[in-house]
Amino acid sequence: MDLSTLASGLDTVWVVLTAAMILLMEGGFALLEAGFVRQKNAVSIIMKVFVDITFGALVFFFFGFALMYGKDVGGFIGTSGFLLGGDLEHIQLTISHDTYWLFQCAFVIAVISIVSGAVAERINFHAYILFTIAMTGIIYPIAGHWVWSAGGWLSKLGMIDFAGSAVIHALGGFAALAAAVFIGPRMGKFSENGTPNIVPPSNLPLASVGAFILWFGWFGFNSGSTLSATNGSIGHIAVTTMLSAAAGGATCILFTMFRYRKADPPMVINGSLAGLVGITAGCAFVSDIVAIMIGAICGIAMVFATEFLESKRIDDPVGAFAVHGVSGSIGTLAVGLFAMPELTAGIGQGYSGLFYGGGWSLLGVQALGLVTVSVWGFGLTWIAFKLIKLVVPVRVTRDEELVGLDVGIHGVPAYSQDTDFIELTKLKNS
Amino acid sequence: MDLSTLASGLDTVWVVLTAAMILLMEGGFALLEAGFVRQKNAVSIIMKVFVDITFGALVFFFFGFALMYGKDVGGFIGTSGFLLGGDLEHIQLTISHDTYWLFQCAFVIAVISIVSGAVAERINFHAYILFTIAMTGIIYPIAGHWVWSAGGWLSKLGMIDFAGSAVIHALGGFAALAAAVFIGPRMGKFSENGTPNIVPPSNLPLASVGAFILWFGWFGFNSGSTLSATNGSIGHIAVTTMLSAAAGGATCILFTMFRYRKADPPMVINGSLAGLVGITAGCAFVSDIVAIMIGAICGIAMVFATEFLESKRIDDPVGAFAVHGVSGSIGTLAVGLFAMPELTAGIGQGYSGLFYGGGWSLLGVQALGLVTVSVWGFGLTWIAFKLIKLVVPVRVTRDEELVGLDVGIHGVPAYSQDTDFIELTKLKNS
Amino acid sequence: MDLSTLASGLDTVWVVLTAAMILLMEGGFALLEAGFVRQKNAVSIIMKVFVDITFGALVFFFFGFALMYGKDVGGFIGTSGFLLGGDLEHIQLTISHDTYWLFQCAFVIAVISIVSGAVAERINFHAYILFTIAMTGIIYPIAGHWVWSAGGWLSKLGMIDFAGSAVIHALGGFAALAAAVFIGPRMGKFSENGTPNIVPPSNLPLASVGAFILWFGWFGFNSGSTLSATNGSIGHIAVTTMLSAAAGGATCILFTMFRYRKADPPMVINGSLAGLVGITAGCAFVSDIVAIMIGAICGIAMVFATEFLESKRIDDPVGAFAVHGVSGSIGTLAVGLFAMPELTAGIGQGYSGLFYGGGWSLLGVQALGLVTVSVWGFGLTWIAFKLIKLVVPVRVTRDEELVGLDVGIHGVPAYSQDTDFIELTKLKNS
Repeated sequence: MDLSTLASGLDTVWVVLTAAMILLMEGGFALLEAGFVRQKNAVSIIMKVFVDITFGALVFFFFGFALMYGKDVGGFIGTSGFLLGGDLEHIQLTISHDTYWLFQCAFVIAVISIVSGAVAERINFHAYILFTIAMTGIIYPIAGHWVWSAGGWLSKLGMIDFAGSAVIHALGGFAALAAAVFIGPRMGKFSENGTPNIVPPSNLPLASVGAFILWFGWFGFNSGSTLSATNGSIGHIAVTTMLSAAAGGATCILFTMFRYRKADPPMVINGSLAGLVGITAGCAFVSDIVAIMIGAICGIAMVFATEFLESKRIDDPVGAFAVHGVSGSIGTLAVGLFAMPELTAGIGQGYSGLFYGGGWSLLGVQALGLVTVSVWGFGLTWIAFKLIKLVVPVRVTRDEELVGLDVGIHGVPAYSQDTDFIELTKLKNS
Repeated sequence: MDLSTLASGLDTVWVVLTAAMILLMEGGFALLEAGFVRQKNAVSIIMKVFVDITFGALVFFFFGFALMYGKDVGGFIGTSGFLLGGDLEHIQLTISHDTYWLFQCAFVIAVISIVSGAVAERINFHAYILFTIAMTGIIYPIAGHWVWSAGGWLSKLGMIDFAGSAVIHALGGFAALAAAVFIGPRMGKFSENGTPNIVPPSNLPLASVGAFILWFGWFGFNSGSTLSATNGSIGHIAVTTMLSAAAGGATCILFTMFRYRKADPPMVINGSLAGLVGITAGCAFVSDIVAIMIGAICGIAMVFATEFLESKRIDDPVGAFAVHGVSGSIGTLAVGLFAMPELTAGIGQGYSGLFYGGGWSLLGVQALGLVTVSVWGFGLTWIAFKLIKLVVPVRVTRDEELVGLDVGIHGVPAYSQDTDFIELTKLKNS
Repeated sequence: MDLSTLASGLDTVWVVLTAAMILLMEGGFALLEAGFVRQKNAVSIIMKVFVDITFGALVFFFFGFALMYGKDVGGFIGTSGFLLGGDLEHIQLTISHDTYWLFQCAFVIAVISIVSGAVAERINFHAYILFTIAMTGIIYPIAGHWVWSAGGWLSKLGMIDFAGSAVIHALGGFAALAAAVFIGPRMGKFSENGTPNIVPPSNLPLASVGAFILWFGWFGFNSGSTLSATNGSIGHIAVTTMLSAAAGGATCILFTMFRYRKADPPMVINGSLAGLVGITAGCAFVSDIVAIMIGAICGIAMVFATEFLESKRIDDPVGAFAVHGVSGSIGTLAVGLFAMPELTAGIGQGYSGLFYGGGWSLLGVQALGLVTVSVWGFGLTWIAFKLIKLVVPVRVTRDEELVGLDVGIHGVPAYSQDTDFIELTKLKNS
């Protein structure tokens, strides 16, 4: 046993454990989304999460990873590493390439899961599978290449997005927005005169626990992004993550008590998540106090964004854009304002945000990157659905939507009261 | 890479991962408590858990941590480390101060979550927020200072409370008792002639899974309390934790089969938790067999304590006192009886319990510490609610209690059957 | 701090954390099974899981571990290590014996949990406790000794079962089959003319989340089985585990869309689990592509096995045999076909499967081991139930089955709507 074997072993278990934590977030997404939608669509949203994790992993193995982290061509795309084979020598890590793949795979699955919520209760299952392939195989990997691969053009410009406020959340959030607009609102969500209607979430305890599981996974998401257990900022990352989430949730408790005269449970759930999203870019690079500020701002922004979308007759059943798109954007820009030179020293020459003597340059790069990634996410999602629509309907039929996707598409309700056994022969004849 | 960097990195990931596991316990508390209470209050109890984790973390960051682990004054209180700044040189660990804060923050959130169960279904939400601030900012940090900070007076006397049977669970349990008594029983819990009534838990599968998540988190709670991954007792701690929990649960299965002629699910759930609580003080210092004994005794004591509280017309809806107060007390005293000198060698000169040749001295210190901490927890909680009552009502109105806190306070039911969309305009007019 | 202390500390935290992840799988089993059965039996299945984890841990501590890993006698059984005492010098690991016990304890609890699903909704609770003692104390430990202890006869023959496709899953699955046959189908599961009836799962969201928790735990299960954090195959193991699970789930999505014209949620859930089970034996020794193949085959085989059992009028409510028995068998044999010499180099001279130049020898050993373990699991389970039947009924009464085991046996329903409080005096008189 020598020191480097030990160091490499430590890094490996760190990355494997944090990857597993991120993958558990799929259980969190499943609970969150199943709890927020109506009973009649609770299974269908979870089936989408199964598509995310199964198709997402396979597609990212076959070609997504290669486009993202393969040998760079022109700062735009990777070109090696299909099926984890070929030349990946440029990836210089203390962990093996497949360990690295696992961690990145957990990320791509999170991205597509963001979109799943925005199209809940009305998307055609076949269309969703096709979109999952597009997102995990092409849309996300290419944008990710720009920011996170060594040769990517935004990476070279100096864009900082530690664990993905932009690459994961802004991209996922704007893709979710595009999908929600493309597919249109659920039947009855808006009255004929345009006023929005609400539907009480079917199971708030499940949704809440989904949020706690996501919160747990986020420690893996952010801290694990060091990819090395001896990175000195792991503790700081975990603390800023905690503080921002707490600030997002606490702010929403107080703000909704003020605004709606009641602490609004769905808003509090999403406020905590907004805090987590917002800190994801800067968790390693901002101070504790700034983390609290970011969380608080993201919490309030989420409330306004939710109201704004409703006023625009855009139907995003679980608040995917308000949580991920808006907070991801805020978090990406916050790095340009608040990055501290001493904290960024580890990633090169040391970057400083506007308020820490760095001038406008970092903020400019962050804004450029954010706009690029968001437009890419929105635009490519729109194009993808346009193409998918040529092959299969993107929306379920009116009858399926009315009866619910669980019975309509998957043939089984989410919850069954005690019943007599149902004769299989009857089913076959139906 | 040198050896000490590696060791410090290993300790950091150990503490961050175990802290995350402890924080996931909030998901466990949420499920456990939402499953035990009635449907109409399932969201309100979870909102309390959100208050615990959000306000708790912020308050502990701003001043709780400083009072607990700051520069000691007179063995009574800490005085530095507000906002994690100032002089914390006296904390000599291989992990950074903020990593240490995260772990302790997870603990304080657990304490307040214990109380949340005892006041379920009837506490005013504003009052709960104020109490959370008092508990996480003052009550717990000061008691914690006495036992766990280097300069604390009970610490200097030699009190042993490895992961907090006294500081966390007895204090939390007695605070829960005070709160339950102060606020009074739920309407209808006791008939006019004083006989207790029962309400079937609304969702036992959720409550059970909450217990399994808590069990998982407890490995972080107890083993993580070494704060160092190279502490030789980690394996032993995890094993005694497992055995005590198993003994608590198994004993309750058998004991309730004998006493009630049926294995009683809520009692079995709480029996496992009682075993976990009971071993928390001594997990590093007692033998495997003693761990089994502690778990078994705590399981049975929990059953009797539950019955005793009912007979005294004290309404503790989820059994917070019976689980945490009683088992925490047993566990604290058990250290005074069963601590083995070879196992305690690592924490100084080596302590021995009464049955291992140490005489009465350790037991006396444990008893003194237990009484002090319990009285402090009970008394300060009582005072806190007295003060809170000057500002806001501590209890919801009769109507809110009847309709349930979910709709009454938070405006949304926990579970909704499929409904038509509800026009927002109607809600606004209501 | 020296290098070996650090290495041992790292290995210890690795094993403790992965053991905790495996133990969390009990929460996954509880959700999965409670979601698959009818409401009226949801608590009873969870109570069985409590029996698994509580009695299982204690029995394995008192004697199961000794029979499995104690001093070998004749390749057949271990004879030391009762209560973790006595001579265990032959176990040469960098972790302590009790840490090792914890990890193995998590395994034995998984085995018995497999069986719990197959006997759901009709087994007598007393009989289940007795069977748990037999399984965790005798049946599994002895078979485990053959394959996994250094002196075991199958181990000496060169059988490879990295994390237990055979020892855990095939044995557990065939035991589940024996139990399901022995105890007979649920009332009404098969019509008088023999056609099977179906009952919709009571709570598919819970079942799904159970699957995600199991998936998370599986990273501990497979990667943790290295028992050392510096084992170079940890990353590869985690990746093959992920790919096989993804392939199992994705295949079931596509295959059920083809076969039933709908992506069938229960099949997709079980398909992912089948992929996980199938890769468990070979996770360290097969290539990524082979992992995908194994997962896909196991997913489809699970569908056919489920249909086959129904056609044979065998009632296995949660598909325990189809998932664990069948995929465990496939996975065990797959090692004999696909083990790669370079990957197996770490475990001795290097083994090769049939398709990698190893000829028939490894395949033969795998087949021999699989048959032995499966017959043992089936046969001893049958004998155990025969003996148990001499003492207590193995099946609940007709009335208890009709009313459901929750109220019938445990006196409380899983889910309660809001009710008035129930006077305890009434209950006592009933």
